[in-house]
Amino acid sequence: MFPSPSLAQLRIVLVEPAGPLNIGSAARVMKNFGLSQLVLVNPQCAPHSDDARQMAVHAYDIIETSQTVATLPEALVGCQRAIATTARSRDLQTPLESPAQTLPWLLESSPSALIFGPEDRGLNNDEMLQAQRFIKIDTRPPYESLNLAQAVAICCYELSRLGHRSQGETPSPTNGVSTAADDVTAPLDELDGYYHHLESILLKIGYLYPHTAPSRMRKFRQLGHRAALSTQDVAMLRGILRQIDWATHQGPDSKAP
Amino acid sequence: MFPSPSLAQLRIVLVEPAGPLNIGSAARVMKNFGLSQLVLVNPQCAPHSDDARQMAVHAYDIIETSQTVATLPEALVGCQRAIATTARSRDLQTPLESPAQTLPWLLESSPSALIFGPEDRGLNNDEMLQAQRFIKIDTRPPYESLNLAQAVAICCYELSRLGHRSQGETPSPTNGVSTAADDVTAPLDELDGYYHHLESILLKIGYLYPHTAPSRMRKFRQLGHRAALSTQDVAMLRGILRQIDWATHQGPDSKAP
Repeated sequence: MFPSPSLAQLRIVLVEPAGPLNIGSAARVMKNFGLSQLVLVNPQCAPHSDDARQMAVHAYDIIETSQTVATLPEALVGCQRAIATTARSRDLQTPLESPAQTLPWLLESSPSALIFGPEDRGLNNDEMLQAQRFIKIDTRPPYESLNLAQAVAICCYELSRLGHRSQGETPSPTNGVSTAADDVTAPLDELDGYYHHLESILLKIGYLYPHTAPSRMRKFRQLGHRAALSTQDVAMLRGILRQIDWATHQGPDSKAP
Repeated sequence: MFPSPSLAQLRIVLVEPAGPLNIGSAARVMKNFGLSQLVLVNPQCAPHSDDARQMAVHAYDIIETSQTVATLPEALVGCQRAIATTARSRDLQTPLESPAQTLPWLLESSPSALIFGPEDRGLNNDEMLQAQRFIKIDTRPPYESLNLAQAVAICCYELSRLGHRSQGETPSPTNGVSTAADDVTAPLDELDGYYHHLESILLKIGYLYPHTAPSRMRKFRQLGHRAALSTQDVAMLRGILRQIDWATHQGPDSKAP
């Protein structure tokens, strides 16, 4: 899977970031999700420091190719759409939306930009209004303020999911219970043979009695259905049954074959 | 909006975390999204260091009240459901699912656990199989490996969204693993006890050999996970194991007790 064109052209704009660890972490998670364009507006730290490199790991190229500009409008040159992120409800009289609601709109046009404010204060109203729409990631009291790089991570994750979807892929239909990857559920007659084998061994070792066997065997069948036993599973389980049969014909101190 | 009960009882389990910055970041984002129970398995760094505190900011209480245990099974005591996270497709023959697909299942039961591996290697197969289901956050080449705290952030974000939804709206449907009709899935420590019992009996009767036991036992754990064994199922299966043990100590013609 290669980055979709819209993701590759989407700018992540960090306004006055002050933490090199955050810049490094943001770069890493951008690359993890197929984004590559990082723009730093008037950074308050050295983006090429060891701390940034430590957190970027194999995404240091994102920092090396990042652009540094003096003002937010410069970061948005050429963009048709921009979304600003905020941690707070502000007096903007503009609705705050969720990432899942709003980010698709950003991918419909390119280049576009997603803007994050400084760690300590977030975007101010003037900076916010450089964008057309506003995202608030829904956190909970008493501690609502997300770390900058975590906010970038969550947005990149949502963008990547949207990017995948918009490329026309169908989601993989693995919903829970499944048999082993390449296996097929065992044919019913094979299962039936296994349950009869199981019953005979359980009677033999005295776990079942003839009058309790039918109800107890129904439980084993239900359990086996839930497990969606494959042919390989049945072979494995019947191997155990044979071994029990063998072991019960030996004295207590005999050795295994 | 207060944390939903299921989020508050969900354990975030970090196996052998080596980076105090990551522990601090994970604690912060947990608190941001209404989670509070952090369990550290054999941490490879000092969780109370200045680095951890620097990243946790106002979530340092999550670290102070975290539990430290020696082994993963200890971290899961009392849990009925656990999901393991992985960065790689592994040879587990078990499907890897997305956070959005799988995390609802974790909130339907409590306490439950979400497990993250060490930064350098991720969870190994034996650690993975302490959980019943597996999550892979879908990243993109060439750099697919997410930072630990970023992976925690994305999962906490999804959990919080689901928690919000399940508080007001219709309960999310269990898509996939279903338990027996009226039963509740057995707690993980109970399952672990059963698998150890099974292994000891299979070794005793000569079905397993010490060198084949680990890989074969992984298959039994997968099979049991698929079946979503209940406490009653486990009791029934352990009854068989005791009976096998009894029967192998008798001569071939002795009668059942």
